[in-house]
Amino acid sequence: MAAGAPDMVGVIGAKRDGRELSGEQIRAVIDGFTAGSVPPEQMSALAMAIVFQGMSRHEIADWTSAMLASGVRLDLRGLQRDGRGLTTVDKHSTGGVGDKITLPLTPLVASYGLAVPQLSGRGLGHTGGTLDKLESIRGWRADLTADEMSAQLADVGAVVCAATADLAPADRKLYALRDVTGTVASIPLIASSIMSKKIAEGTGALVLDVKAGSGAFMTSYEDAERLAATMVELGTDAGVATRALITDMSTPLGRSAGNAVEVAESVEVLAGGGPDDVVELTLALAREMLAAGGVTGVDPAENLTNGRAMDTWRAMIAAQSGDPDAPLPTPRHLHEVVAPADGVLSALDALAVGEAAWLLGAGRSRPGEAVSAAAGVTWHIGVGDRVRRGDRLFTLHTDDEQRLQRAVDRLERAAVIAADGESPGSRVLGRVG
Amino acid sequence: MAAGAPDMVGVIGAKRDGRELSGEQIRAVIDGFTAGSVPPEQMSALAMAIVFQGMSRHEIADWTSAMLASGVRLDLRGLQRDGRGLTTVDKHSTGGVGDKITLPLTPLVASYGLAVPQLSGRGLGHTGGTLDKLESIRGWRADLTADEMSAQLADVGAVVCAATADLAPADRKLYALRDVTGTVASIPLIASSIMSKKIAEGTGALVLDVKAGSGAFMTSYEDAERLAATMVELGTDAGVATRALITDMSTPLGRSAGNAVEVAESVEVLAGGGPDDVVELTLALAREMLAAGGVTGVDPAENLTNGRAMDTWRAMIAAQSGDPDAPLPTPRHLHEVVAPADGVLSALDALAVGEAAWLLGAGRSRPGEAVSAAAGVTWHIGVGDRVRRGDRLFTLHTDDEQRLQRAVDRLERAAVIAADGESPGSRVLGRVG
Repeated sequence: MAAGAPDMVGVIGAKRDGRELSGEQIRAVIDGFTAGSVPPEQMSALAMAIVFQGMSRHEIADWTSAMLASGVRLDLRGLQRDGRGLTTVDKHSTGGVGDKITLPLTPLVASYGLAVPQLSGRGLGHTGGTLDKLESIRGWRADLTADEMSAQLADVGAVVCAATADLAPADRKLYALRDVTGTVASIPLIASSIMSKKIAEGTGALVLDVKAGSGAFMTSYEDAERLAATMVELGTDAGVATRALITDMSTPLGRSAGNAVEVAESVEVLAGGGPDDVVELTLALAREMLAAGGVTGVDPAENLTNGRAMDTWRAMIAAQSGDPDAPLPTPRHLHEVVAPADGVLSALDALAVGEAAWLLGAGRSRPGEAVSAAAGVTWHIGVGDRVRRGDRLFTLHTDDEQRLQRAVDRLERAAVIAADGESPGSRVLGRVG
Repeated sequence: MAAGAPDMVGVIGAKRDGRELSGEQIRAVIDGFTAGSVPPEQMSALAMAIVFQGMSRHEIADWTSAMLASGVRLDLRGLQRDGRGLTTVDKHSTGGVGDKITLPLTPLVASYGLAVPQLSGRGLGHTGGTLDKLESIRGWRADLTADEMSAQLADVGAVVCAATADLAPADRKLYALRDVTGTVASIPLIASSIMSKKIAEGTGALVLDVKAGSGAFMTSYEDAERLAATMVELGTDAGVATRALITDMSTPLGRSAGNAVEVAESVEVLAGGGPDDVVELTLALAREMLAAGGVTGVDPAENLTNGRAMDTWRAMIAAQSGDPDAPLPTPRHLHEVVAPADGVLSALDALAVGEAAWLLGAGRSRPGEAVSAAAGVTWHIGVGDRVRRGDRLFTLHTDDEQRLQRAVDRLERAAVIAADGESPGSRVLGRVG
């Protein structure tokens, strides 16, 4: 609904001084910003005031609704297969290093008869983008029309594709502004950004994977829990059955961070193998999604071992013109970093590993930049494992030899080898909703 | 000095998180903003972060220096009269309702042989602009070249004119941005804005009149004192002998707020009459300016009664093409508000009076708007005076009858008439430097 032109100086001053904004004010701000009548310098000042003053539950709900109303909302309620209605369940992760979970999880959940519409983004900075990873598969394309997406959901049940520009355009514009004005770090703004997009995608249920730790946006458990609770509230209020896991991102997930290297690891998981932590988190999220979608009495581990999840994966890749049998790209340069001493790997810093992968060419520093499919980092032991001096610790993958030195430097103190060390506990730290 | 392009996201994040910015960072920000390479949305986000986190003494000094360095700095050290060097002393008020003190003060101080260069601005909102007031004098012009200003200082000793665009252009651009982004309310930003302009004007000494109270920007004494102390520090560090008075602005100054009405009251003061509080504050500031300029053993009250200040006023107006003998403009409509009861005027709200004058046409809501010379409010008794029901309380002056009603409404609760009331104390509340 259109609202009158906002008194932006009054709105900014109210938020700066800690007063609550009305729904009418918030709609006018978002509408005006989307239409261009509220200039970026006023919006960024308001965003910074929100960073400091926060938003009330009412304000966050109004802000999210206004962003949602700025574009179209998909309606997936009519999806059918064999004459029966399909239930949709989506997953969203707040992003972490080595977080390839969408790749095995989407076909796994779809293999139980649910429809999983994973509208994803590209990476920026040290956390990779799901689309960037999948684009290392020969022929695979991220851009589907809404009709193609619906058809693939009805047919295969699993789709990972690019979100179209008409979903929550206000969020797209605001995120680009926040990115350059130091106003990303705000739980209300992060929650409303994620949820306006996810609600617009039309899913019936949603499971959130909110990361906490050094490699995540939220470094503390408390902040991650607050973000999770805010998003669960927003989803529930919008009629989307929403729940969240809070999971550990102090250590990178699995044994790889990059593009093709993460696809390879995901395929291992779908083949019944793969690193324990990736399997654990995939199954934990699958259980939440199955429960949210009303599928009971099944153990998702089964379809990893019996090949059904792999079948859905192959169908999903092929439906988007990808060749699941094509070899993945290999890097022109490999470089190994070995352990400097005997001992136990007692810590592996997620942020350092993520930034090293980024420095090797796996990520971008500006939207629109090309990424290297073959670039990334793999590590050969996990936290808690014994290592001997001279054993391989990291392998660096890159197409550009000149990128090696900075990545090696960044990894210098990433791995801590101590006399003793414990194996990490569960990746799942908590649950909301 | 030019600095490299700033990492604005890093700078904004550092200030947001409470870290101190380096001199190099601050110079790069101000240079980049002035040149246009730092876009307004980044500058407004930084300004809002400064509103919340403040700036250290070092940061404020660097910020002020960088704004000063963005333009020219006048050099008035070579001024001479009759072969002897002239000492320059300037005054700046943070602005209040009915604050016409510059008008009698400038010629009064100049009449003791000091040179007083008053580079002033136009009003915006409820506090009037000195230039707007003087422009109600027939023929008077505000725009002088630097040479004309120097010649008038050497000849008459007193000049009130418009600041040229080449003084602290960074401040001009930043102020325009702060005005529309809710980032005016910051002591470090206010202090550096005022002081960069005042230091650029090349004065040898400076006396600040920092207002506190409902009609002032700083409503509390503590904030006014902090602002005063910050500015005195900045002036002193820049080699300008600076001191400040903190003065009361809970009640409007004198008996008039507007343009021609304030000129008329100022001429009364120069003729040895005028309201007690205007005379008191004029003399208090004159004593500070005389002392800062090294003139001792004189009582400035003398030149108000013996006509010398009036002689300098007439010379100052005439030197800028004004006719000191021309009648002042009169309004097309006068409206009187009478006392609703017997009693004592126990309070008179400065903000309400200032806004009423603005509503009558004395001020502007956008830069560049024309103001009405004849518009304003006069009041016939002061706080502490007895009044009888039906006595004249306010006279409203306007050229536009349609403006009357809103101004009358605004004044509805401005005057409090009680059974008892005390005369106000001194306008001078404190002193810094």
